[in-house]
Amino acid sequence: VKIEEEINYDKTRMERCGFPEFIYGENKTFKQLKHVICEIRKAGLAIVVTRLDKEKGEKLTGVFKDAFYDEWARVFYIKTDKKHKSNAKITIVTAGSSDLPVAYEALRTLEACAIPCKLIPDVGVAGIHRLMKHVETLKKCDAIIAVAGMEGALPSVIGGLVSCPVIAVPTSVGYGSSFNGLTAMFAMLNSCASGVTVLNIDNGFGAACAVMRILKTANIHRP
Amino acid sequence: VKIEEEINYDKTRMERCGFPEFIYGENKTFKQLKHVICEIRKAGLAIVVTRLDKEKGEKLTGVFKDAFYDEWARVFYIKTDKKHKSNAKITIVTAGSSDLPVAYEALRTLEACAIPCKLIPDVGVAGIHRLMKHVETLKKCDAIIAVAGMEGALPSVIGGLVSCPVIAVPTSVGYGSSFNGLTAMFAMLNSCASGVTVLNIDNGFGAACAVMRILKTANIHRP
Amino acid sequence: VKIEEEINYDKTRMERCGFPEFIYGENKTFKQLKHVICEIRKAGLAIVVTRLDKEKGEKLTGVFKDAFYDEWARVFYIKTDKKHKSNAKITIVTAGSSDLPVAYEALRTLEACAIPCKLIPDVGVAGIHRLMKHVETLKKCDAIIAVAGMEGALPSVIGGLVSCPVIAVPTSVGYGSSFNGLTAMFAMLNSCASGVTVLNIDNGFGAACAVMRILKTANIHRP
Amino acid sequence: VKIEEEINYDKTRMERCGFPEFIYGENKTFKQLKHVICEIRKAGLAIVVTRLDKEKGEKLTGVFKDAFYDEWARVFYIKTDKKHKSNAKITIVTAGSSDLPVAYEALRTLEACAIPCKLIPDVGVAGIHRLMKHVETLKKCDAIIAVAGMEGALPSVIGGLVSCPVIAVPTSVGYGSSFNGLTAMFAMLNSCASGVTVLNIDNGFGAACAVMRILKTANIHRP
Amino acid sequence: VKIEEEINYDKTRMERCGFPEFIYGENKTFKQLKHVICEIRKAGLAIVVTRLDKEKGEKLTGVFKDAFYDEWARVFYIKTDKKHKSNAKITIVTAGSSDLPVAYEALRTLEACAIPCKLIPDVGVAGIHRLMKHVETLKKCDAIIAVAGMEGALPSVIGGLVSCPVIAVPTSVGYGSSFNGLTAMFAMLNSCASGVTVLNIDNGFGAACAVMRILKTANIHRP
Amino acid sequence: VKIEEEINYDKTRMERCGFPEFIYGENKTFKQLKHVICEIRKAGLAIVVTRLDKEKGEKLTGVFKDAFYDEWARVFYIKTDKKHKSNAKITIVTAGSSDLPVAYEALRTLEACAIPCKLIPDVGVAGIHRLMKHVETLKKCDAIIAVAGMEGALPSVIGGLVSCPVIAVPTSVGYGSSFNGLTAMFAMLNSCASGVTVLNIDNGFGAACAVMRILKTANIHRP
Amino acid sequence: VKIEEEINYDKTRMERCGFPEFIYGENKTFKQLKHVICEIRKAGLAIVVTRLDKEKGEKLTGVFKDAFYDEWARVFYIKTDKKHKSNAKITIVTAGSSDLPVAYEALRTLEACAIPCKLIPDVGVAGIHRLMKHVETLKKCDAIIAVAGMEGALPSVIGGLVSCPVIAVPTSVGYGSSFNGLTAMFAMLNSCASGVTVLNIDNGFGAACAVMRILKTANIHRP
Amino acid sequence: VKIEEEINYDKTRMERCGFPEFIYGENKTFKQLKHVICEIRKAGLAIVVTRLDKEKGEKLTGVFKDAFYDEWARVFYIKTDKKHKSNAKITIVTAGSSDLPVAYEALRTLEACAIPCKLIPDVGVAGIHRLMKHVETLKKCDAIIAVAGMEGALPSVIGGLVSCPVIAVPTSVGYGSSFNGLTAMFAMLNSCASGVTVLNIDNGFGAACAVMRILKTANIHRP
Repeated sequence: VKIEEEINYDKTRMERCGFPEFIYGENKTFKQLKHVICEIRKAGLAIVVTRLDKEKGEKLTGVFKDAFYDEWARVFYIKTDKKHKSNAKITIVTAGSSDLPVAYEALRTLEACAIPCKLIPDVGVAGIHRLMKHVETLKKCDAIIAVAGMEGALPSVIGGLVSCPVIAVPTSVGYGSSFNGLTAMFAMLNSCASGVTVLNIDNGFGAACAVMRILKTANIHRP
Repeated sequence: VKIEEEINYDKTRMERCGFPEFIYGENKTFKQLKHVICEIRKAGLAIVVTRLDKEKGEKLTGVFKDAFYDEWARVFYIKTDKKHKSNAKITIVTAGSSDLPVAYEALRTLEACAIPCKLIPDVGVAGIHRLMKHVETLKKCDAIIAVAGMEGALPSVIGGLVSCPVIAVPTSVGYGSSFNGLTAMFAMLNSCASGVTVLNIDNGFGAACAVMRILKTANIHRP
Repeated sequence: VKIEEEINYDKTRMERCGFPEFIYGENKTFKQLKHVICEIRKAGLAIVVTRLDKEKGEKLTGVFKDAFYDEWARVFYIKTDKKHKSNAKITIVTAGSSDLPVAYEALRTLEACAIPCKLIPDVGVAGIHRLMKHVETLKKCDAIIAVAGMEGALPSVIGGLVSCPVIAVPTSVGYGSSFNGLTAMFAMLNSCASGVTVLNIDNGFGAACAVMRILKTANIHRP
Repeated sequence: VKIEEEINYDKTRMERCGFPEFIYGENKTFKQLKHVICEIRKAGLAIVVTRLDKEKGEKLTGVFKDAFYDEWARVFYIKTDKKHKSNAKITIVTAGSSDLPVAYEALRTLEACAIPCKLIPDVGVAGIHRLMKHVETLKKCDAIIAVAGMEGALPSVIGGLVSCPVIAVPTSVGYGSSFNGLTAMFAMLNSCASGVTVLNIDNGFGAACAVMRILKTANIHRP
Repeated sequence: VKIEEEINYDKTRMERCGFPEFIYGENKTFKQLKHVICEIRKAGLAIVVTRLDKEKGEKLTGVFKDAFYDEWARVFYIKTDKKHKSNAKITIVTAGSSDLPVAYEALRTLEACAIPCKLIPDVGVAGIHRLMKHVETLKKCDAIIAVAGMEGALPSVIGGLVSCPVIAVPTSVGYGSSFNGLTAMFAMLNSCASGVTVLNIDNGFGAACAVMRILKTANIHRP
Repeated sequence: VKIEEEINYDKTRMERCGFPEFIYGENKTFKQLKHVICEIRKAGLAIVVTRLDKEKGEKLTGVFKDAFYDEWARVFYIKTDKKHKSNAKITIVTAGSSDLPVAYEALRTLEACAIPCKLIPDVGVAGIHRLMKHVETLKKCDAIIAVAGMEGALPSVIGGLVSCPVIAVPTSVGYGSSFNGLTAMFAMLNSCASGVTVLNIDNGFGAACAVMRILKTANIHRP
Repeated sequence: VKIEEEINYDKTRMERCGFPEFIYGENKTFKQLKHVICEIRKAGLAIVVTRLDKEKGEKLTGVFKDAFYDEWARVFYIKTDKKHKSNAKITIVTAGSSDLPVAYEALRTLEACAIPCKLIPDVGVAGIHRLMKHVETLKKCDAIIAVAGMEGALPSVIGGLVSCPVIAVPTSVGYGSSFNGLTAMFAMLNSCASGVTVLNIDNGFGAACAVMRILKTANIHRP
Repeated sequence: VKIEEEINYDKTRMERCGFPEFIYGENKTFKQLKHVICEIRKAGLAIVVTRLDKEKGEKLTGVFKDAFYDEWARVFYIKTDKKHKSNAKITIVTAGSSDLPVAYEALRTLEACAIPCKLIPDVGVAGIHRLMKHVETLKKCDAIIAVAGMEGALPSVIGGLVSCPVIAVPTSVGYGSSFNGLTAMFAMLNSCASGVTVLNIDNGFGAACAVMRILKTANIHRP
């Protein structure tokens, strides 16, 4: 058995989960990635490789001409064959500009699946007026991804302003007792705004998948 | 100012969030609770008081004749005035029978808001065939609440089987290095099934609210 | 040596620190407490015993006729002999009604030292409009004590609205991954609002002392 | 939208908080920093960029001729236009010489805002006589920033000697069970000297802001 | 005393434990390793050096001509002199392809001791059907090593399917709240499948030794 | 559905795992337990209920006349119908006398399954000669369960003396930084004796199941 | 075997370690304790039972007429037969009066072994002058036991003042982020005073044994 | 003030503590180190700089001709002027060969102070016979420094064999749940061998100082 064949791609996840298996790029060789991308591509599905370093990302875009690599988000992606875009109203909000790479990981995953989304950056709670001027936009969303590091307070404020699902993504932004995002994650899990749900630290990708599960139920879009 | 007036009930949460403010019962006096329940009731909204001990629960059901108190779930509730029930397909699944109190906290919150839900108890992953015979039911759900303690593996298996939102609730069931639910919570946050979202330990109530946010977007039901 | 004499009361703290040594009530016997209170009283200084259980609190108010015992805050106190009250503008703000005991510990300590303060309870960030209607009051303060449990976000929002010192007190309110106040404390230490300072969990008493240090520098009041 | 425009500078913080928004340098590109510094400068406010690496720091001092870069403190700063210096008496004390970079982060932030301060380095508690010879100086301060790593005992000793605010800054100096400053931070939060307040690990910058809040209330200086 | 002689090789471990002392490669110099390998070799025993970097690994294979170095597993090994292979039925199962290096550490250790084993990679619980098609193979094993990172759920599912010993090895695969394998390790220790035993994070080598202890009792093979 | 029917007994575990499903007694009502014991009993299988308090334990032995309740180990059990005892040589070793309840949990589970075992109590490493006089006994075992709290060093010493499987069970015996068994558990997971495997804190029951898995492979006994 | 015989008393510890085996009282029955005390007594050695609750303590002093029970320290002890007292100069210092029970555990253990010691209570670092007036006494000691909770700073200050061994004992005094003594213990382990050694939380008993080991080497006294 | 003058050398520590202030090399510049070494040298005292990297170490030995630099231990040292060596019997024991750098840090510190010591490497508890052959040597020691990583069991075994002080030094040797030495440190703090005292992780230097404090009391040697 060759090593690249030891990646056991889950061929039926699209049918089961409504989105294909995406690839976790860390620790995979260029050969393994190329091999598995080829396999997924035959089905015309969206391809997303997360946490991919620049060197492999650019080497892969050299091979796959319709692919993109977002260096900041460390995401390689090829858009789905399906042409019509979703009309879902999704917004990604970040507390600071340092949270943007995680926000873009979510954004690129959704983009690959033809789900457009709006980005509202840098509206953290220390300048609450910056968030407040977007309230009407937020109230009309189908789902909101709230991305924050440090004390992770943003999802609590948003969760108290809107009725749609609020998906909180803690980031590793901060230092000292931010513990690489742990403080933000715990804060979000203890949100006083009821019904906020939480993902792992820096898991923008997972937030995008959670949105797709919601849209499936809402019958708004299938990627 | 009297102490019972120091509870500052959030009167507009129904409009903002799609469900009224619910009451965290712990540390509140009987007087405070009675006072605030009376206030909410004038609006005909669903009333849910969580983490309420038996003594106060029964005392309150003595006062409010249309109220219920579920001793196991430690929930006091009065159903919404709205008569028509939701036709949403919600299922709550538990890994063990010890996880049932948390499951019932979710169930009672939904019940108060006229959202019926199905309960599938005791289908933990050490006897995977028990879960497998419910797969077809699970595939048809609008949302699933997966409740588990110990190693918290259930949401990962379910998340890989269905396309709807999977809301994971870790419970404090276990001992030693289960750390009162922390291990289950961390496991769920690291789920290899993409798009699973997580709530705080034993937070069945929050899971019910998360479901209501999803149903709002899906336009299936407003409590 | 008798046990009650093994309490080694710090007689010169008033001169050094601007407020007398206060007594940590936990683990002290009634005899020890009575002995030490008598000693402090001779100097006419404010007396504060924190974390005192009801039984000893009431027994002591039986002995000292000008004393008060606040059961909720678990504080026993005798007011300073100095008659004129401070004209400092201090406000204590709490996120929830469950945070009130900690707020009252701060309030009673200040009261014993003739520093009046305003209390704004239950204005947590999930209903941000509740806080917003107090902004003008907050802007005029000399110092604000912000008390919150769960995700501990309140001091960050307040810190971004005012120019005076904001003293954050995390409380043990919450469950699961609130870790008895640890999550709130870490969140406050990572506040994106610059210059917010933090105290130990449930340390309302310490916040009152921090206020007195500030008033000393501001030359507004000496207790 | 260009990336440098995604930094959403908080234009009214000076009015609200008494000091302008300062910039967290980590993870920001040279372009973003240059863009935002230009914007702040128009208002003649103090500019402080913390946690900035040497390469960017020197590149920015090449562009802004009145700027300084302190390599040790990793702070880039431009002094406020206001000419008159504060007459506040601020002292920064460190336990060891390894704590100096954090002390200098505070010092440079205050310097940018025209607040001079005295530095007393290397007076840790294992040689208590070194601190004791500065007691009279410390007693006259308006505020003291006490910086220490390892067991973080310095603020407790100082807090027992003076009546002004003592702002404790734990540093990541130490090894093994110092946990990169966590032990010092916890020690400071548990100080037996009442009214000591604490900041995040290595957060010298935040301590400077806390001082400015105090000076605002004391009406001694507005930067 | 020369430094290479300060490795105090345990000469009688083979007799006592049924396998020789293996070498922990980290922090050892090339000289030390060469010295100790020579010593073991005289007895014709299997030699395994774990956690050995590539440079030293290749240098040693240059010296010992019958040796192998597996770069992925970071294992250097020389096979035992004993010619007959074990007929034990051992399987190593991994949740993801990123867990393979740890699986190979176990595999190479067994190989050095003439115990062949089967490898089933990438059958994590998010695609449970992938595991299910191997159930009959698993049921016939003498022992199974289950390797998983992230939420570490795989050993629980396997433990509920088979009657042989299941040895769980958590890996450091994951990010954020996976805490470099801690979450997986805690999950495995809390497995709802009774009788699953656990090793340290990334300790594939220890799992191989545990298998050898079992085979000793089962009288199937002595390496 | 009645609550006692919500225990979803796993009927085929005996066939799959070689031992029946045992019952975790905590949080279960007397009715639930009686119901489920009746069900298992029809098959003549061994019944073990762990972590059962005295009141329920004695009430159940009142109902089931061939049952035993060990108050110290908190185990209720009924022996398997199978008459012939195993001839396996199993030894349980404890570091201190306070570790005995956990040792007895293992012992009673094995006893219910007709596997006798020897108990060597109180041979902790601070008096190493006490262990050394049992070395010959230990060398002849098929498996050893090593039970220890505090620093958890016992399994390391035993693991270096014998060739059979050593199953380490940390106990919550100790105080302060023993963290209720966590220190012992971590110590065991880091054992320098290769191939020692570990169970959750106080999980004597799980160790017994691990032994049964080993005996299954060794073909010595089926309960 | 009877349960009381399962305590395996270490008969030769006096010869090996210079003090007899002392008894950890927790979890032991009255019968077990009586049995083991009788056994030790035959040799005329000092007897110390730590962490013994009042009920058993008084029951045992009823049986052994020359025994003492210190309720505060929770220590039962019988003095050694050896008549001459040590002339060692040992001092136990505590930071607060709440640390006294731990100090007394050390004191009673030494007393049982005929080693007198001086107690200096309540000289914590927030009133450093209280400690300073004892400096000359401290400088003459053969060993000092420094007992402190909260931030645990006392041993650092003492360690910098004297040349004899300083044995630091953290106590569980404090709340919130004192973590039941963990913060004090970590602070002591990171002491900037070189050569301070540390014991487990609340382990006054262990500190007494450490002193006896030092006196053995110093040839001052053998208990 | 120049930076090198900001090191505030403690000139009277030799008189107070019996050994001079030693230098923590991390984060200090070559200039600072040279400056401070010159100052100490005037008094003819032993000089020890710990945690010094190779580059600075070799540069300093170039300047100070009677100095040594031990690359492995990362210690720079100059021996005391006092010519007569101590006749104390000190032994340093290590569990593994990877623990040697920490052992050498202790050894070099003692050597600088003219205290010779014996080194017994690599006698960890998994091969207990290796330790046992040194028992007679250990019994004659004045103090033993026991150095171990991983499960940190060595000091417990030694503490049970000897009557002299046993100073336990945990090392960061290990991986996964060894947590860089934390597990070893906790294990040592929970030693079942009474009177073992503990130092911070990898703090060989501190152990040497603890030995010197003991020798001072024993009147055996003054460095």
